[in-house]
Amino acid sequence: MIIVKVGGGININWNYVAQDLKQLVAKKPVVLVHGAGAIRDEIAAKLKAPTQTITSPSGISSVYTDQKALDIFLMVYPGLVNKKVVATLQAHDIPAVGLSGVDGALWRAKRKANVLSREGDKTKLLTDNLTGRVDQVNTELIQLLVDNDYLPVIAPPALSFENEIVNTDNDWAVAIMAGALHVKKIVYLFEAPGLLEDINKPTSLIKHIDSEKIDNYLSFAQGRMKKKVLGVKKAFELAVETVYWGDGRIENPISNALQGNGTVISSSKVSL
Amino acid sequence: MIIVKVGGGININWNYVAQDLKQLVAKKPVVLVHGAGAIRDEIAAKLKAPTQTITSPSGISSVYTDQKALDIFLMVYPGLVNKKVVATLQAHDIPAVGLSGVDGALWRAKRKANVLSREGDKTKLLTDNLTGRVDQVNTELIQLLVDNDYLPVIAPPALSFENEIVNTDNDWAVAIMAGALHVKKIVYLFEAPGLLEDINKPTSLIKHIDSEKIDNYLSFAQGRMKKKVLGVKKAFELAVETVYWGDGRIENPISNALQGNGTVISSSKVSL
Repeated sequence: MIIVKVGGGININWNYVAQDLKQLVAKKPVVLVHGAGAIRDEIAAKLKAPTQTITSPSGISSVYTDQKALDIFLMVYPGLVNKKVVATLQAHDIPAVGLSGVDGALWRAKRKANVLSREGDKTKLLTDNLTGRVDQVNTELIQLLVDNDYLPVIAPPALSFENEIVNTDNDWAVAIMAGALHVKKIVYLFEAPGLLEDINKPTSLIKHIDSEKIDNYLSFAQGRMKKKVLGVKKAFELAVETVYWGDGRIENPISNALQGNGTVISSSKVSL
Repeated sequence: MIIVKVGGGININWNYVAQDLKQLVAKKPVVLVHGAGAIRDEIAAKLKAPTQTITSPSGISSVYTDQKALDIFLMVYPGLVNKKVVATLQAHDIPAVGLSGVDGALWRAKRKANVLSREGDKTKLLTDNLTGRVDQVNTELIQLLVDNDYLPVIAPPALSFENEIVNTDNDWAVAIMAGALHVKKIVYLFEAPGLLEDINKPTSLIKHIDSEKIDNYLSFAQGRMKKKVLGVKKAFELAVETVYWGDGRIENPISNALQGNGTVISSSKVSL
């Protein structure tokens, strides 16, 4: 089994993703996870509740999620975007089934009731942040669908252990899910050729990262990218062997990433 | 198996529905279908794209669904409302899994590309209406979930045979699904004690309707209620034996409806 995580940028080419998936699912089971950040921000602005970002004392950015933001999240991730992705895959004859982390308690998260937010020189305590970190996965539900030739198409949010709907870091959830499903390979697609040394220079692609040295990239990565690096680190702790970062805007995006045309993260101790 | 359809009114008490379902699912498999009309109208107004209703030459009202309206539909039905319903059921320890008609091509609909709309004395031809009528059901997916003790929680829209996402009449879809699953009993819950002779008099409850005389009620029912009557008529054509209309605002709403405390529709030729 392989997990493919597609970012929520507007330039992701979902037809290319679907064409490539069609080939891939014939060979091995796939679980798809997607984001929807760009459209969420757009709808949030239209509803006059623009997305707010908070930064932790350790410098990690995340989205501030009060009830209003969570409602918008529910509209866009498992609603508008998930169903359009599923319809696109169906149009390519892939029997996709959309699920959120709430369905069948697929993603159980530990609620983070108290969150520290750095604002200038001050640190503020937020107590109404509806977020959590995925800790447990209903692998039986995923396996049930996969064994019956369905492709699960998963979007956040998650369900807390107290049955609250909570926003959750998608990349962390992917890592926990990979661990629970004993998945060895994860492909991440976003709007860049891979990890770039200089974000403004597409030619500065980093071809390989040693998974034992992933911490070095934590200081290097900026803003929300830090969370991606933390997610990848967690995935390796949970016995994932190779992570592929690739371009979701090009033809055959998944095959290209798997062929090493983006950034490959693996242990220098094992072969690719 | 029994199908429970819960209307999209804001006064439906979902905690009462969940408590009652908890008892019911212990005895027999349940498939839940829900609406979300009230919240859809609210969000549509906030997004400055208020819900528009059209009336067919035969006097049947339906929602006009252009791309903008469909996007809002996707946000609210399988997104905001479906996931909140699923979380509420999970909080009552029911292993609910939310699905739309798009997922696994659960509800396949025949697209109605051309729709006639009566506007005053004139009849207008609408060609951009993204609607269809459910014609085929992926019963295998429902059975797979039910056989593994999950409760499917289904919301429109549907997927056309050309893989377009289309708005669809929920009550018609319920009838087609009941036929495909060989379901004999359907419970409909809404914001009234049942069918009322006088819509302003809750005491004017019609206790029993002979399913062979359902056509009489077609002239009697108003606006969108006509569609409910047409849906029920279709259900009886497809071998459903009893339809229960009950109050979704009261405690034990499903049990109450099944005990005949609302409106019961059945053939006068068979016993209740």
